[in-house]
Amino acid sequence: MTEQHDKTGAPPGTVIYLGEAQTNRVKITLIEYNETEFIEKDFYDWSECVKLVKPDMVRWINVDGIHEATLVEAIGKHFNIHPLTLEDVVNTGQRPKFEDYENYVVSIMKMINYNDELSSEQLSVILMEGTVLSFQEADGGDAFNLIRSRIRLGKGRIRKMGADYLSYALIDAVVDCYFNVLERIGDKIETLEEKLITSPSKETMQQLHYMKREMIFLRKAVWPMRELINNMERSETLLIKPSTDVYLRDIHDHTVRVIDTVETYRDLLSGMMDIYLSSVSNKMNEIMKVLTIITTLFVPVTFIAGVYGMNFKYMPELETKSGYYIIWIVMLAIISSLLIYFRRKKWL
Amino acid sequence: MTEQHDKTGAPPGTVIYLGEAQTNRVKITLIEYNETEFIEKDFYDWSECVKLVKPDMVRWINVDGIHEATLVEAIGKHFNIHPLTLEDVVNTGQRPKFEDYENYVVSIMKMINYNDELSSEQLSVILMEGTVLSFQEADGGDAFNLIRSRIRLGKGRIRKMGADYLSYALIDAVVDCYFNVLERIGDKIETLEEKLITSPSKETMQQLHYMKREMIFLRKAVWPMRELINNMERSETLLIKPSTDVYLRDIHDHTVRVIDTVETYRDLLSGMMDIYLSSVSNKMNEIMKVLTIITTLFVPVTFIAGVYGMNFKYMPELETKSGYYIIWIVMLAIISSLLIYFRRKKWL
Amino acid sequence: MTEQHDKTGAPPGTVIYLGEAQTNRVKITLIEYNETEFIEKDFYDWSECVKLVKPDMVRWINVDGIHEATLVEAIGKHFNIHPLTLEDVVNTGQRPKFEDYENYVVSIMKMINYNDELSSEQLSVILMEGTVLSFQEADGGDAFNLIRSRIRLGKGRIRKMGADYLSYALIDAVVDCYFNVLERIGDKIETLEEKLITSPSKETMQQLHYMKREMIFLRKAVWPMRELINNMERSETLLIKPSTDVYLRDIHDHTVRVIDTVETYRDLLSGMMDIYLSSVSNKMNEIMKVLTIITTLFVPVTFIAGVYGMNFKYMPELETKSGYYIIWIVMLAIISSLLIYFRRKKWL
Amino acid sequence: MTEQHDKTGAPPGTVIYLGEAQTNRVKITLIEYNETEFIEKDFYDWSECVKLVKPDMVRWINVDGIHEATLVEAIGKHFNIHPLTLEDVVNTGQRPKFEDYENYVVSIMKMINYNDELSSEQLSVILMEGTVLSFQEADGGDAFNLIRSRIRLGKGRIRKMGADYLSYALIDAVVDCYFNVLERIGDKIETLEEKLITSPSKETMQQLHYMKREMIFLRKAVWPMRELINNMERSETLLIKPSTDVYLRDIHDHTVRVIDTVETYRDLLSGMMDIYLSSVSNKMNEIMKVLTIITTLFVPVTFIAGVYGMNFKYMPELETKSGYYIIWIVMLAIISSLLIYFRRKKWL
Amino acid sequence: MTEQHDKTGAPPGTVIYLGEAQTNRVKITLIEYNETEFIEKDFYDWSECVKLVKPDMVRWINVDGIHEATLVEAIGKHFNIHPLTLEDVVNTGQRPKFEDYENYVVSIMKMINYNDELSSEQLSVILMEGTVLSFQEADGGDAFNLIRSRIRLGKGRIRKMGADYLSYALIDAVVDCYFNVLERIGDKIETLEEKLITSPSKETMQQLHYMKREMIFLRKAVWPMRELINNMERSETLLIKPSTDVYLRDIHDHTVRVIDTVETYRDLLSGMMDIYLSSVSNKMNEIMKVLTIITTLFVPVTFIAGVYGMNFKYMPELETKSGYYIIWIVMLAIISSLLIYFRRKKWL
Repeated sequence: MTEQHDKTGAPPGTVIYLGEAQTNRVKITLIEYNETEFIEKDFYDWSECVKLVKPDMVRWINVDGIHEATLVEAIGKHFNIHPLTLEDVVNTGQRPKFEDYENYVVSIMKMINYNDELSSEQLSVILMEGTVLSFQEADGGDAFNLIRSRIRLGKGRIRKMGADYLSYALIDAVVDCYFNVLERIGDKIETLEEKLITSPSKETMQQLHYMKREMIFLRKAVWPMRELINNMERSETLLIKPSTDVYLRDIHDHTVRVIDTVETYRDLLSGMMDIYLSSVSNKMNEIMKVLTIITTLFVPVTFIAGVYGMNFKYMPELETKSGYYIIWIVMLAIISSLLIYFRRKKWL
Repeated sequence: MTEQHDKTGAPPGTVIYLGEAQTNRVKITLIEYNETEFIEKDFYDWSECVKLVKPDMVRWINVDGIHEATLVEAIGKHFNIHPLTLEDVVNTGQRPKFEDYENYVVSIMKMINYNDELSSEQLSVILMEGTVLSFQEADGGDAFNLIRSRIRLGKGRIRKMGADYLSYALIDAVVDCYFNVLERIGDKIETLEEKLITSPSKETMQQLHYMKREMIFLRKAVWPMRELINNMERSETLLIKPSTDVYLRDIHDHTVRVIDTVETYRDLLSGMMDIYLSSVSNKMNEIMKVLTIITTLFVPVTFIAGVYGMNFKYMPELETKSGYYIIWIVMLAIISSLLIYFRRKKWL
Repeated sequence: MTEQHDKTGAPPGTVIYLGEAQTNRVKITLIEYNETEFIEKDFYDWSECVKLVKPDMVRWINVDGIHEATLVEAIGKHFNIHPLTLEDVVNTGQRPKFEDYENYVVSIMKMINYNDELSSEQLSVILMEGTVLSFQEADGGDAFNLIRSRIRLGKGRIRKMGADYLSYALIDAVVDCYFNVLERIGDKIETLEEKLITSPSKETMQQLHYMKREMIFLRKAVWPMRELINNMERSETLLIKPSTDVYLRDIHDHTVRVIDTVETYRDLLSGMMDIYLSSVSNKMNEIMKVLTIITTLFVPVTFIAGVYGMNFKYMPELETKSGYYIIWIVMLAIISSLLIYFRRKKWL
Repeated sequence: MTEQHDKTGAPPGTVIYLGEAQTNRVKITLIEYNETEFIEKDFYDWSECVKLVKPDMVRWINVDGIHEATLVEAIGKHFNIHPLTLEDVVNTGQRPKFEDYENYVVSIMKMINYNDELSSEQLSVILMEGTVLSFQEADGGDAFNLIRSRIRLGKGRIRKMGADYLSYALIDAVVDCYFNVLERIGDKIETLEEKLITSPSKETMQQLHYMKREMIFLRKAVWPMRELINNMERSETLLIKPSTDVYLRDIHDHTVRVIDTVETYRDLLSGMMDIYLSSVSNKMNEIMKVLTIITTLFVPVTFIAGVYGMNFKYMPELETKSGYYIIWIVMLAIISSLLIYFRRKKWL
Repeated sequence: MTEQHDKTGAPPGTVIYLGEAQTNRVKITLIEYNETEFIEKDFYDWSECVKLVKPDMVRWINVDGIHEATLVEAIGKHFNIHPLTLEDVVNTGQRPKFEDYENYVVSIMKMINYNDELSSEQLSVILMEGTVLSFQEADGGDAFNLIRSRIRLGKGRIRKMGADYLSYALIDAVVDCYFNVLERIGDKIETLEEKLITSPSKETMQQLHYMKREMIFLRKAVWPMRELINNMERSETLLIKPSTDVYLRDIHDHTVRVIDTVETYRDLLSGMMDIYLSSVSNKMNEIMKVLTIITTLFVPVTFIAGVYGMNFKYMPELETKSGYYIIWIVMLAIISSLLIYFRRKKWL
């Protein structure tokens, strides 16, 4: 939950990785393609990668791991990226945003994963003339694997289109992830709702609170996405061709749907809190009512028993032979009439 | 509740049906008319339909069922519809929207039905020069039947007007459905309100929650409708003639009224939750108060009985002849004065 | 509460009255005036009315009752009113709005009345060159009577001004009605507030809920009024002369004040719900506390009495002569010290 | 609380005083000054005042009391003020606003006073060429006295500046009053907050509600002030010189600060309601817990005493000599172990 | 909490210090630098400082302490600062804002510190041609020390850039402080959340309320920062060079992130209040349930004991030898079956 920003006073544009410590090696994947050719290579060393690049193809350099600041700086220097952009790329506490520097445009966003709990990693997509750079915190491969295989197999229109379409495809994959996550959360909400009504417990309440928190954080990741796409659509950059506009509009719609769903879930969760409280209080009331009724049934008859336990010398009832049986009848009659009264009042 | 969007990484523009499995056959209805002529035919095969079409008439092709992606693709290809539009048409999780492609404009919206519970199906209306395509998930015939009979009988101005008026009429029928649904929900709210005040129970609360959920989903369907109509009004397409503008303004008003009513119902339902909680707690308080009062009445007299049940050798009261009667009087006096006290305090 | 819109599928522009059944006859009042002349006549037949109209005067035709669709259609035809406008005039579920058709402008709004409960009727004011048409559901005479008498007596500037000033005066009278209603509601709120604090009951809560509902509906009527006036001010119609602009600005201010007051009342009523709940719970807590304290006082002493009611052979206290008196002292001491303890803790 | 607007149907522009009845005489104060000269006179008669006015000086006519409609009308006539403006000046239910008539601009606002409770009076400042008219409900002298003495003593830049600076100074004094009031309310909130936590009572709750109401009304007075200043800044009137713009910006900042503070206080008060409810319920829970624990301690031992109070012929324990003492030990052991259990569970 | 604004009626532009009394001496730090040279000196006397200043270098005059109005006025006079700006500089109740006077631009903001509780001091940064003036309430050195050492050591680009970059760096340091404070608050929230669920007490609730208050005040400081940066970006001043724009955009992003985090924390804290109330009520319910169950277990058996304590002459059970043992068995059976019943109902 805590924001990572431990650089007070450090000169702006300093490229310092601020995420959690990372030990695995940074992997660089280079993919180059045009309609006819396709090259794919993995590197662990930037210097090798640079040598390879070929002209006249769409180049996609994907960097899995941003904890090696020197590597990011080297790449940045090679492609003439502004230091502030590099700072944003490695600073994992970034807010999703789109920025237009003349020679490139950069989109920074959050990839969401949901395995029992919500985790996010930062993705930065830098679009240059003919080249797309993507930086991920860890290997968020699943989503991108599908794009990779589409490129490999030449399926769809991706091989026929330029770098701008590729960067669109990457962002689209991220938004699609949101839908998957929301679907799972939706299922969880439904399960939780049932539990709340049938068997409300402290655990369901905590789970509810936990989901509310998740929605708060999801919202924080999703809302700026709309702005990002908006800025992308309205940007005057020449790197995004007009033919890609219709695809951006499509992502825009998807983002709005994601936001709608997040807001709907927030509303649902709020309503569920009320239901939880009401269920708990109903259950408690039921218990207290039954317990109190039991007590109330026995109080008057205990009093009567007490009366005939008194040691007065002269108590005529005590002398009669049937007194004891009569008193039993009286006491049972009291209990019965109370029960009937309670049942009529629908308290039982 | 779950969003349907299982296409992560699939190339955008892929026409995959995402609604629930559908087994019934897709029916295509072709209606062609001008002021004097009228043709109506049903098909189960697109290839036949294509042969039929006649020039110089308004053509309305209605497709009931969008689960046959190949059919939708065939139609799309025939009319030169963009793949992204076709994707939207068959993807039933769409957000209502209006989009302007040069050769056609498309309006996607939700038709609402209310039989005990709220169900919605997606309707896409594509307006082209002289032709209207409409795609429905299932046969939402009731609403459109009235339009069909108006065309058949040549009632009103529909036969005199062009394809743009027809597409307006379809959207207007959808908005009219909202009014019907809201009217029924309004009745339900009134019934529920009465129940809440007279006999609040767990069931009424669940019903209340259920209606709140319905309003959340209704809202999600209705709010974008305003935007849709707005975009339609402001669109610079030549397909919608200026003479139709006044009708769009009319739908716009209706949509705003629907939104107003939805918001009003949301407010009412929120207030009713308070009333429910207050009613339940009042009822419970009443019960606990009566039970506790019964207990409180007997506690002091039971104590007195206990006192005279003690076995002290020397207790002068026990020896007197009238002691027993006096103690009865004392005990009844205590109970009576407590009752009077409670009644004065208005606790009874 | 239910919206009236039973025309699903009916051709737009159909003039069908949708309000409650009305039996009384429709009255048409014609007033014509200029600075020097004044004519006033009542009709029950439109055909007569048409014959009367004179040139060069401001003409005000007021129709009390809109349930005779044929009459409204006849008037509409005579003045060349668009069918959609006529539909709006008779459809009593209309949202307040201002519309500018070239030859006339129409303002549709709600007149509010408050006799124990809120009732509203629809008023449509159509301003044409030299003529004002006003359609009311029923005879909402009080508000307009003052305008009529001002016209009759030639008081103020109304006789010197044109038809646009007359239509302004009608709308102003409607807004003034809102102030009257709000004043009465304000009084009711103050009364209710006092009741809530001094003697909260289920009835006050229901009344509170009822007033909240009224504010929701009042709000629904009042908010669009601002938009109406705004559109009127910004309209480019030539029917409203620039000299009338200052009066429109005045109504605009009044409308904003009405909205402010409605919102203030909503805030107050929300706060009052909290007070009600808090008052009820305070009252209940007070009762339960007193009852429980009574029980608690007697429980320990009853125990002591029980102890000395045991039948052990060897219980030395029972044999002493003063034992009984000592035990009384002990028991009274216990009760007293509990009372002192409770009072110190401020529980009594 | 009730809105004053009893003029339904009265012709607009009618100058009727709508505040509370006022008996004290209306005082008119005339101040004329330039850099070198200074004149100050009090009048109770407008006719005298008119004679006095001198050219080439800044003239400030302050009217204390607006209940004499004829006086206001006379002044209005003399300075050629529009009847609608005069109506606004005397109608004390006005919403703060700025209006630009060609020959003058008028600012109507609320002066706030806080002596135990919030009271407000209306101030209207009319700025004309070389002249400022100010109308107050009653003598709101304190705030203006400081301005008067600054003019008298020639302190600051006021004597060097024109009528527009004077009208700015008057409005600034009003905004400064808001700060004073807010400071006092802030103190009150702090006191109240302490009370809420240490000794919540019905009185603190009522006080809290009362303060919430005050904030609602304060807000209603303050929000339109921002709009007023905005309109003043954006106005194209020539009466306000560009050199005064920087001072308007200053008031604008102050107004925004006032609004911020009002909103902050509203937030604080909302949070305090939660605290009150939680404190009350904590206190009550504490009481009920202690009372119930006392009862619970004695219930099992009373049962044991009851057992040995039974009159069975054959009860071996009763015959033993130490039975009575053993039973005392058992009962004390039960009470002690319950106490230990409760203390372990932290219920005590 | 109280607003400081005790100047009602004082002429605007009066330089009066409104913060808390300050006794320590005002320290003036002069730093002058360009790419090659660097001068740093401390003064306690403005007259000395003035003599020192050198041309062709970036000059940074930092004033620690603004309670000596004469000093601020002297500096203001020397640099030709408008009196209203000087008033804002020393008035510590200022709202963060950016203002553009032709010869200088001024940014006023709040520096936040968090040592157990939130404290803020006002910072004013005045940017002139080649000179930056900064006024702090007290020595907020930590944040600025890092900038000073960067200047001293010539690290980063600061020595190569102009006065506008320096003023950017100062503001950036302030925003960085917000991140530090938020991080600490985030930790505190997490700690508090755990406490709330495991051991809710009155103290945690008060802490929660305290944190909510802090967020309200933090929000009041942070929101206007965005506006400040916005105005700075949009300002047409020539003092900020286009090359600095990219850095302003960077601060803008940071500010939005700070605001996002503040809002998120507010949401979290609101949800935690619900959890607290629910936890407390759960805990209380648990206690009352156990206590009431204990009572309920003993009430029926006490009644039975009471019955056999009655003194009726003829009670056959009393005569049997095994009666006493049978009754023990009956009573234990009753208690056991109640326990089993409660456990089945999951009340235990």
